Amino acid sequence: MGKRTVKVGLLGLGTVGSGVVKILQMNGEQVTRRAGAKIEVKRILVRDMERPRAVEVNPQLLTTNPDDLLHDPDIDVIVETIGGVDRAHKYIEEALHHKKFVITANKDLMATAGDDLLLLAQKQGLNIYYEASVGGGIPLIRPLKHSLGGNRITRILGIINGTTNYILTRMSLENMDFNTALAEAQAKGFAEQDPASDLEGKDAAYKLCILSRLAFNSRVRFKDIYIQGIEGLSKRDVFYAGELGYAIKLLAIGEELQGGLVLRVHPTLIPLTHPLASVLNENNALFVVGDAVGEVMFYGPGAGSLPTGSSIVADLIDVARNINRQVENSIIENNFQEKRIVSMDELSSAFYLRLQARDKPGVFASLATAFGGEQVSLDMIIQKRSVQGMAEIVLVTHKVEEKNFNSALRSIQRSPAINKINSVFRVIEK
Amino acid sequence: MGKRTVKVGLLGLGTVGSGVVKILQMNGEQVTRRAGAKIEVKRILVRDMERPRAVEVNPQLLTTNPDDLLHDPDIDVIVETIGGVDRAHKYIEEALHHKKFVITANKDLMATAGDDLLLLAQKQGLNIYYEASVGGGIPLIRPLKHSLGGNRITRILGIINGTTNYILTRMSLENMDFNTALAEAQAKGFAEQDPASDLEGKDAAYKLCILSRLAFNSRVRFKDIYIQGIEGLSKRDVFYAGELGYAIKLLAIGEELQGGLVLRVHPTLIPLTHPLASVLNENNALFVVGDAVGEVMFYGPGAGSLPTGSSIVADLIDVARNINRQVENSIIENNFQEKRIVSMDELSSAFYLRLQARDKPGVFASLATAFGGEQVSLDMIIQKRSVQGMAEIVLVTHKVEEKNFNSALRSIQRSPAINKINSVFRVIEK
Repeated sequence: MGKRTVKVGLLGLGTVGSGVVKILQMNGEQVTRRAGAKIEVKRILVRDMERPRAVEVNPQLLTTNPDDLLHDPDIDVIVETIGGVDRAHKYIEEALHHKKFVITANKDLMATAGDDLLLLAQKQGLNIYYEASVGGGIPLIRPLKHSLGGNRITRILGIINGTTNYILTRMSLENMDFNTALAEAQAKGFAEQDPASDLEGKDAAYKLCILSRLAFNSRVRFKDIYIQGIEGLSKRDVFYAGELGYAIKLLAIGEELQGGLVLRVHPTLIPLTHPLASVLNENNALFVVGDAVGEVMFYGPGAGSLPTGSSIVADLIDVARNINRQVENSIIENNFQEKRIVSMDELSSAFYLRLQARDKPGVFASLATAFGGEQVSLDMIIQKRSVQGMAEIVLVTHKVEEKNFNSALRSIQRSPAINKINSVFRVIEK
Repeated sequence: MGKRTVKVGLLGLGTVGSGVVKILQMNGEQVTRRAGAKIEVKRILVRDMERPRAVEVNPQLLTTNPDDLLHDPDIDVIVETIGGVDRAHKYIEEALHHKKFVITANKDLMATAGDDLLLLAQKQGLNIYYEASVGGGIPLIRPLKHSLGGNRITRILGIINGTTNYILTRMSLENMDFNTALAEAQAKGFAEQDPASDLEGKDAAYKLCILSRLAFNSRVRFKDIYIQGIEGLSKRDVFYAGELGYAIKLLAIGEELQGGLVLRVHPTLIPLTHPLASVLNENNALFVVGDAVGEVMFYGPGAGSLPTGSSIVADLIDVARNINRQVENSIIENNFQEKRIVSMDELSSAFYLRLQARDKPGVFASLATAFGGEQVSLDMIIQKRSVQGMAEIVLVTHKVEEKNFNSALRSIQRSPAINKINSVFRVIEK
């Protein structure tokens, strides 16, 4: 086609960076055909020149000096795979100032500084591509921006953290307890040695930030998101959920209601018949509801070297096409509106509740009083035979205002008949 | 943005056409923002000016003369929603000759004449967009062309016919027989009054043509596809499949093997744990395996006015962006390679087989001889107590060369111990 080669500066040659290089090596001819031009990695920033690499590269491409990439006028596009916030932020700003397109896999950065960076990119007549920042290899950003562009999206519902989904799957299918499942996830590389950000729901919340901006065309900040993690989740809850016809999943949920946006990450009981319930192990999925399309779901591997690399290479193909046509033709999302954030207290939810009661007369009466006083009605109850004077009771409520449920909960806690409230989770029917 | 309004000529105002108009009315402001320009339906071709419409339109837009759209230099893009092959073909060719972009929802046409039309479009510096032709509202074409552009795709596996999936779901969940489920599907509008094309698997084969071209970058013709439909499928098979841990789905399958492409549509037993098994009712899903991304799946409504309209509006947004940048920046697929088509005889499959045997000694011996002679080994067997001297036997084989299985089948048919072979289906484990 006579188009000029597009030159890439790659920041980082770890899991994701080496995936990108490997795909360009494996499928270079096809990538060239799709991009309408050759894509060449010209320089790679690494921390340690001597470290063994998962992929074969010409050692002369490696450098430890970021200026060798960021200041090279020959480089058209910077691919950032180093992760973290501060250094990546600085490099991306510098790349944009030097008139380079940017592709990043960095969810933390796009969640916290994405608005400003996208604005800067637009000022420079450029764009930032970040398909790889959410959902690994699953196409999510491009479908939200392009394929569903005619829809007013009312809801997104996703399993967007592979670590927690792996743990919850193992607990459910193998009847494992939390710590055993976590240890297995770590051994298999599905959980970090310090898994706090995943288990606490922060990782999912970063990704929800990015997705909600696009879905609801709104400014969304990390602090706008209500977060509850899955640390120490009991296998008894996984068991009871199954018995009641539910799976427990860590869901990231964004909704646009009349009053504004509700944004939350929490363990959730969803019916076993829901498409998200059969998303197992380290896989991710995003369920999207639009006013025209109805319900669609995107499913696949949420992380990994080649899957994440696949998303970056898709972005590279887009950038190459734009460079050679001398246009920036992808949709730039930068005029996000401010929308009100609805607090959890204003929400109505159904709840799952497991508690330990003293096995004596009047227990159900005191529960009934506490719930009845706050208009909380019950949908399902399980009580098994009591052991050593203690009965375990599992309840699922109908939908109820959260503030009412919370005050019912407080009065239950005060009741002498109730020994302990073990767990409280939200239930979503569809 | 000061971009000029993009003018649309709409062919047809039936289910799909009125969906497009409705979405532009509902979400016009957002569409304008995403497209960077206003999108205006200037003229609509209808057959009958007086017919009541599902959507409110200015009657002055309606015309029965196609030249009012195709010859109007003011119209930038023709959206074809009339269906059928001959008339649609003629109009689309004419639109391209008159330098108009084309968007179509027409699977039959794109399957049978897509290669030529795409080539003509390219010669004219234009493009044809056809996201709506497969999978209704589910983004499939754009992900295959763009999001997975870095992958060599080895396999696509899809439920891409809503009618048959609805029937199979009802048979499975409600224990209905085929005719009752079909009648219900017709009553609910999920099956046509003449459902032959759906039931025989032709509709799915047209769509497989379109998807396989993109996935395997290959010329694919309708006649290359092996087709087996679901007409008269027995509820006994649905029941036994469930007992063995499988769902029966009408799958469209494209694979690139060493020897070439295998393209087929047939009822298939898939494990209940497979993501496609939980695709219920009229929904569609496409499962894609790529060498970089691994396994991804796209799920949603495979038909309907607004879902299909959603895909067309996404295409309109792309066209509008391209028109205003005076480039054609979407990937044009026209240099498809010729690839060898692998015949079913060369394939290895596992099979499900239900047969009726006379309940007397030697039945299993004759089966064993027939199978053993052709290297067919058995994975699972069900035999229930016999009724009136007849025993129903259900077998699942291990993977075996199809030609061997077929000759075993012929010798079983000749065996005096076997009364009838009721059904033969392929089984896919993953």
